[in-house]
Amino acid sequence: MEFAVIGGDMRQARLAEMLACDGHRVAAALMGDAVHKPCVVCDWRESEDMARYIILPLPASSGDGALNCPMVEERVEIRDIIERVRPDQTVLAGRIDAATRHMAETEGIRLIDYFEREELAVTNAAATVEGAIQILMEELPVTLLGSRILVIGFGRIGKLLSLRLRALGADVTVSARNFSDFAWIDALGLRHIDTRKLAGMLRGYGAIVNTVPSRILGEELLRQIDSECLCLDLASKPGGIDFSAASNQGLRAVWALSLPGKVAPITSGMAIKNAIYNIISELECTY
Amino acid sequence: MEFAVIGGDMRQARLAEMLACDGHRVAAALMGDAVHKPCVVCDWRESEDMARYIILPLPASSGDGALNCPMVEERVEIRDIIERVRPDQTVLAGRIDAATRHMAETEGIRLIDYFEREELAVTNAAATVEGAIQILMEELPVTLLGSRILVIGFGRIGKLLSLRLRALGADVTVSARNFSDFAWIDALGLRHIDTRKLAGMLRGYGAIVNTVPSRILGEELLRQIDSECLCLDLASKPGGIDFSAASNQGLRAVWALSLPGKVAPITSGMAIKNAIYNIISELECTY
Amino acid sequence: MEFAVIGGDMRQARLAEMLACDGHRVAAALMGDAVHKPCVVCDWRESEDMARYIILPLPASSGDGALNCPMVEERVEIRDIIERVRPDQTVLAGRIDAATRHMAETEGIRLIDYFEREELAVTNAAATVEGAIQILMEELPVTLLGSRILVIGFGRIGKLLSLRLRALGADVTVSARNFSDFAWIDALGLRHIDTRKLAGMLRGYGAIVNTVPSRILGEELLRQIDSECLCLDLASKPGGIDFSAASNQGLRAVWALSLPGKVAPITSGMAIKNAIYNIISELECTY
Amino acid sequence: MEFAVIGGDMRQARLAEMLACDGHRVAAALMGDAVHKPCVVCDWRESEDMARYIILPLPASSGDGALNCPMVEERVEIRDIIERVRPDQTVLAGRIDAATRHMAETEGIRLIDYFEREELAVTNAAATVEGAIQILMEELPVTLLGSRILVIGFGRIGKLLSLRLRALGADVTVSARNFSDFAWIDALGLRHIDTRKLAGMLRGYGAIVNTVPSRILGEELLRQIDSECLCLDLASKPGGIDFSAASNQGLRAVWALSLPGKVAPITSGMAIKNAIYNIISELECTY
Repeated sequence: MEFAVIGGDMRQARLAEMLACDGHRVAAALMGDAVHKPCVVCDWRESEDMARYIILPLPASSGDGALNCPMVEERVEIRDIIERVRPDQTVLAGRIDAATRHMAETEGIRLIDYFEREELAVTNAAATVEGAIQILMEELPVTLLGSRILVIGFGRIGKLLSLRLRALGADVTVSARNFSDFAWIDALGLRHIDTRKLAGMLRGYGAIVNTVPSRILGEELLRQIDSECLCLDLASKPGGIDFSAASNQGLRAVWALSLPGKVAPITSGMAIKNAIYNIISELECTY
Repeated sequence: MEFAVIGGDMRQARLAEMLACDGHRVAAALMGDAVHKPCVVCDWRESEDMARYIILPLPASSGDGALNCPMVEERVEIRDIIERVRPDQTVLAGRIDAATRHMAETEGIRLIDYFEREELAVTNAAATVEGAIQILMEELPVTLLGSRILVIGFGRIGKLLSLRLRALGADVTVSARNFSDFAWIDALGLRHIDTRKLAGMLRGYGAIVNTVPSRILGEELLRQIDSECLCLDLASKPGGIDFSAASNQGLRAVWALSLPGKVAPITSGMAIKNAIYNIISELECTY
Repeated sequence: MEFAVIGGDMRQARLAEMLACDGHRVAAALMGDAVHKPCVVCDWRESEDMARYIILPLPASSGDGALNCPMVEERVEIRDIIERVRPDQTVLAGRIDAATRHMAETEGIRLIDYFEREELAVTNAAATVEGAIQILMEELPVTLLGSRILVIGFGRIGKLLSLRLRALGADVTVSARNFSDFAWIDALGLRHIDTRKLAGMLRGYGAIVNTVPSRILGEELLRQIDSECLCLDLASKPGGIDFSAASNQGLRAVWALSLPGKVAPITSGMAIKNAIYNIISELECTY
Repeated sequence: MEFAVIGGDMRQARLAEMLACDGHRVAAALMGDAVHKPCVVCDWRESEDMARYIILPLPASSGDGALNCPMVEERVEIRDIIERVRPDQTVLAGRIDAATRHMAETEGIRLIDYFEREELAVTNAAATVEGAIQILMEELPVTLLGSRILVIGFGRIGKLLSLRLRALGADVTVSARNFSDFAWIDALGLRHIDTRKLAGMLRGYGAIVNTVPSRILGEELLRQIDSECLCLDLASKPGGIDFSAASNQGLRAVWALSLPGKVAPITSGMAIKNAIYNIISELECTY
C-alpha cells in the first residue's frame, strides 16, 4: 500500500478513490461505507501499517484529541495514530492543531500540513466563490446582472469573487486597505474603496459580501446599510459581521462556512489530491 | 387611476407597487394581500373601470377561460373582464391565447401582448440564464470553473448562457445550426459544433444544457452521454430532452421552467414594467 | 483544376494558397508574384477554363468595368471574364456591382456574392474591431483601461467592439436606437444611451467610435465633444462624422476603412475561404 | 511652492501640470518648453529652493552622475541638486541608483524612490500590457481572436496580459514556475505549463510573449518555435530571448522596452502623481 486515507468526510472518501484511480494502492479506513473500490477498506491500524503516506482529514482533529471521522461512530485518538508511525512513513494532514504538531515533534515523525499549500488555498477559494455566488442567486430576488455589490477584502476570495461577479454583469465595488491593492483593483477594471473608511459608503448596495476574518461590519456600520441589502459573510471565525446587531436591525445576514466541501466535494477532494502530489514531488526532489 | 393590475403572481404584485412608486395611480385587484401601498387595493371591476391601462398577468389566462390569478380563491372569467373594456382603455396582457385575442377583436378593444416585446424576452433570458447557473451550481459536485459544458442552441438564452458560463471559467462548447451562428460563436471566442451532428460528440461533458424547444436529445443521443453528466433543459414545452429515456438510463436530467419569476421576481416585474412603458411611449408617439 | 483565383490583393493571394494547402487544385492569375506554391500560376484565361469555381476579388470590380487587380499593371474587363464562363462553372465574387450582376443574368451564368454571407460579415466585423482597438491604442495618450468610451451603433461591429473594450477595462457606453437593443446592451452588462438623443450626452468621453453608416455626428454635436476626445469612424461611406466640421473645431477624427484586409490579411483570406466552402456545401446539398 | 519637478521627459511635464491642476503650487525646471501653465517655469536652483517636495525623474540619473533631463541641452550634476537640499525638504525620485542613494545618506537628506511603490508598478504593468497588445495587433497578420498565445511568466505583467488576451478571444497558455501560480492560473480559467519544462511545448503558437527578466528562450528552445510565430520580449535587460539566435533562425523577435511612457504618457504621469501623493500621505501619517 502506498496511501492510507484515515477518517474525514466525503471529500476524503473521494480523495481515496481518486488516488486509487490514478493507479496507487490505497487503503481507506474510518469512513464507513462511503468509500468504494478500487480502494481496500480495512481497519485503521492495518491501513496505517502498510502505507508509506498516511493521510489524515481536513481538519485532522475534532478538537478534543480525537481524529475527525464524522462518518463512523468510533472514536480514535490522534495520539494512537501518531505513536504507530514509523520513521519511513510520512503523515499528511489538514489544518494541524498545536497539540498534534507537538506530538509529532516529540515522536520525531514527519508531519506535513497540506492545508498550508497555497495551491490548495487558491482552489478552495475558487470553490468558495462559486458557493457564494450560488447563495447570492438563491437569496436575492433580483438578478446579479445589474446589481450593485460590495466585496470587502481583496485576498484570494475577494479577488476571484469580484472578478466573477463582474463577469456576471454585476456592478462591483471592492473594499481594500492599501494602495497596492487599490492599484490591482483598478488594473482589473474594478472600482475600489477603503475598508477603513466604510462609514457613509454603504448605501445603495443590493448585497455586501465580507471576506475579511475580523469584525468589519459592527452595529454602527450595519445601521447604514439598506434594509433590503443581503449581507453575506464568507470569513472564518470570528467572522466579519455582527450577526446579532444585524438581526436586531432586521437585516438579512448569512454566514457561509466551509463552502468548498459543501458545494464542490469532488473538486475539493481533487484539490487535496493535487496538494498531496505536489508535496510528495517536492519531498522526492530533495532526496 | 391610470393603471389597473388585475390577477397574477408575485411578479404582478411587485409590478403594481413599482408602477405606483414611479408616481402613477395604480389599483390592484385579485392578488390577495400580496400588494402593499402605495397601490389602492379594490374590487377588480372597480379597478378596471377607473384605469386607462388594464394590465393582465403573464400568462393572462389559466387555460380554461379564467383569469390567471393563483393568489386568490376566486374564479374570474376573462370574458367578463374583456366585455367591460371601453374604447378609451387599453388592455396589456402576457402570452395572450387565441380565444382571448378573438374576444378582443370581436369587441373591438385594444389588446396588446407585452410578452411579444423583444426587450422583455431579452431581460427574461438574462434572468433564465442566472437561474440555470444557480441550478448547475446546486446540482454539480464540481465547480463550474474547469467544467466542460455543452450549450445546445444559440438564441437569446444560448448566447447569454454560454458567455456567462465562460466568464465563470467553464470550458464551453455551443451547438448551433447555421454558418452565421457558427461565425458569431467563434467571434465571441467560444467553440462551436453542429446541432445536426451531435452523434458521437456528446462524451466528456460535465453538463449539457438544452435551450432549443424541440426534441434534440432522444434515446439514441442520451445513450452517448457520460453517466455523471447533468442534463438541464431550459426549453419550454415540449422540451428538448426525452426525460423518460434519460431516467431509464440513470441520467440526471432536470427540466427548469419559468425561471425568471422564480429566481428573480423583482427583476421580472421590473422588466414587465419597462415593456409596458415602452409600449405606451410608442402608442403615444403614434397619436 | 477546381479553383481559379483571379485578381485581387494579398487576401486573394493568401486565399489561393490556403485553398491549395487544403488539397484542392488551384490556378492563380493576375496577382503578380504574390502567390506561391502549391498553386499553379498561369494566364487568367487558362486558369478560368480549367476551374469549376472561378473566384473573383472583394470587391470584384474596380468600378469602371475592369476587374479589381491592383497587384498587376494589366487591365482586364469583367465582361471578358464573364463571357467565357461555361454552364458547368460557378463564379464567386465579393460585393458584386449591378452591372456585373446584370451581365451574369444576361449570359445565364451562376454568380454568387460571397460578401453577402453573414458568417463572412461577422468574421470581418471581428477583424475590424481589432483594428479599431489598435488605432485607439496608437492614438490615445492614456490606457484604454479606465477610459470612458462611447460606441455608437449596436450592429455586428458595435456589439463586438463594446464587449472587447469592456474586457480591456474601459468604461463603455453604447448608443443604439430601439428598446430591443437597449435590452441586449443591458443584458451584456453594458450601459446604453439613445442615438436619437445624443445632444448633451457627449461630454466626458476619451474616445467616441461611430459604427453607423449615416451622418450621426454633425457640426452641432461635434461642438459638444471634449477637445481631447478622439473620434474614430468605422462606418463605410458616407461615414458618420462630419470630418470637415471636426477639423474646424480642432477635434482629432480618424476614418478607418477596410480594416480587415489591413490588420489581418490571413484571417480575412481564411474567412473568404470558409464562406466559399459554405456556399459550395450548400450548393451541393441542393443537388 | 510645494513641488519642484526637475528634469525628465514628457511624463514629468504632464506630472507637473497635473500637480498644478490639483491646486498645488508647482515649479518646473529643465524641461524646455514642454511644461505649460499653471506651473511656474524657472531655473532649477530657484525651483528647488522654494519647494517642500523635490521630484526627480524616472530614472533620476542618466547613469554618469548627471540628472536625466533629455528635453534640454544643459547638463546638471545630481550631486549639485542633492547638496542644496535642506532638512525640511524631501526628494522623490524614480529608480534611484546606488551612487545617488549614497550621496543622500552622506548628506543626511530624505530621499524616497517612488518607483518602489507597488501601486506604480501595477499601473505601469497595466500600461505595458496595452502596449504589448498593440504591438501584437500591429505585427500579426491574423486577429488575436482565435490565436494561440503563450505568455511566459506570471508576475504583474503576465497576470494582466494573459487575462486581457483571453478577453480578446485568444487561446492563452501561461507558463509559470510553481504550484501556487499554477493554481492561480487555473482559478482564472487559463491553461498553465511549467517554465522549466518548455522543451517540446513551444509548437503551435502564433505568438510567444516573455515577461521574465532572465534568459528563457535560448538557441535550443527557439529552434522549436514555428517559423511564423512572433516572439515578443517585455522583460527589462538582459531580456529573456536570445535575439541573435532568433535572428539567425529567421524568427521575428521584438524587444519592447519602456512601453508605459511611450504608449500612455498621461496615464504614466498620473501613476507617478498618485504614487507621490500616497508617499506623502504616509509620511504625514507618521508625524
